[in-house]
Amino acid sequence: MTTGVRRRMGVEERRQQLIGVALELFSHRSPDEVSIDEIAAAAGISRPLVYHYFPGKQSLYEAALRRAADELAGRFLEPPQGPLGARLLRVMGRFFDFVDEHGPGFAALMRGGPAVGSSTTNAMIDEVRQAAYEQILAHLGIGKPSARMELVVRSWVSLAESTALLWLDGRRVPRAELELQLVHDFAALTAVSAAYDEEMAGTLVRILADEPADGPFGDLVGRLMALAPRVPVQRAH
Amino acid sequence: MTTGVRRRMGVEERRQQLIGVALELFSHRSPDEVSIDEIAAAAGISRPLVYHYFPGKQSLYEAALRRAADELAGRFLEPPQGPLGARLLRVMGRFFDFVDEHGPGFAALMRGGPAVGSSTTNAMIDEVRQAAYEQILAHLGIGKPSARMELVVRSWVSLAESTALLWLDGRRVPRAELELQLVHDFAALTAVSAAYDEEMAGTLVRILADEPADGPFGDLVGRLMALAPRVPVQRAH
Repeated sequence: MTTGVRRRMGVEERRQQLIGVALELFSHRSPDEVSIDEIAAAAGISRPLVYHYFPGKQSLYEAALRRAADELAGRFLEPPQGPLGARLLRVMGRFFDFVDEHGPGFAALMRGGPAVGSSTTNAMIDEVRQAAYEQILAHLGIGKPSARMELVVRSWVSLAESTALLWLDGRRVPRAELELQLVHDFAALTAVSAAYDEEMAGTLVRILADEPADGPFGDLVGRLMALAPRVPVQRAH
Repeated sequence: MTTGVRRRMGVEERRQQLIGVALELFSHRSPDEVSIDEIAAAAGISRPLVYHYFPGKQSLYEAALRRAADELAGRFLEPPQGPLGARLLRVMGRFFDFVDEHGPGFAALMRGGPAVGSSTTNAMIDEVRQAAYEQILAHLGIGKPSARMELVVRSWVSLAESTALLWLDGRRVPRAELELQLVHDFAALTAVSAAYDEEMAGTLVRILADEPADGPFGDLVGRLMALAPRVPVQRAH
């Protein structure tokens, strides 16, 4: 690939290259195990030159996280057409693609710690969570969520994060199963809230109105109905 | 309370006093907003003397977290008698007591960041999560959990954390409602997994076998059954 004459990169171009190299390294090992020397070597430049573009390791980490965060937020975008269950399932597929591609970097970031935890990184993580939260509300057609609705959606976003982290630790459950499970978990958490709050019940009924029998929500309801007779809990009369 | 003659405290006694003073301050403000000067003033000793007992701010933080972590893990302990739903509900009550008492300190710690995030603090947090996980398995009577069972229990522990954090941010939903909701969420996440996995279905049926109609699980099942006719999702035949 070398042409013999190495073209000089512009500042922004070089910065983007270093970010790409760093993200590639962080997809195999945790950021705190990757040195600036390694990033310099992988980019084919000297260590001092890396520091010319990024004043310190932390600033390169933060730039890499910025790009990854924007990319992840982009994956939440889903056209507002068709049944909600199928939309959520497609988003979960792209979310797990991202988690799969960025493995150790994602894990290190979400777990926090000395090399990756700072006010800046935490703020960027919260920004992605907020983007996910707003996307879901938009798909639900909810402009002003109640406190209960907000709690259900935000806690589900957090459940998706922790499920992905648990999956990365050994990958003992197939990811396709977890993507579907998270879509079901969303319905389940909403149903729990709906059992005790009339506004949430209205939302649940409205969400499920457009669901086909063979979509993720229809399938779950069918299976739970089949399971119900085996559940011996005494019903209140 | 001053007797005129101030008794000299032993080293361990003084350390415990400083930890108590620090935890008290962290229950009102985030640890990164509390200075060693304030801790010294509240303990009635000089700043250099604090450093005599703790070499730095971080070591005092970590000692305070150690005590708080042990206390929280202690609150998970629940006698293995009676229906599981009621046991979980009592544990959730004590968990929210803890969250309530330690508010800003708990929030800062779980969110990570410069002052509170370190390998040591992260390891202590993971230890408490592990204690919660093991307690729940013990209550379920499960010695060797399947990968799916482990995932459901660990992700529920994480859901309890994030729900508590969301509650602290404005306290807009009554905590008693969230304590009950989390117990229900546990049943709901288990049911979702049980709908697709025979081993989980067996566990769910066994758990619910001893539940009274007026316990948290019985009440939820009754309410969901009442809600079901309103859900218009087409059933597969």
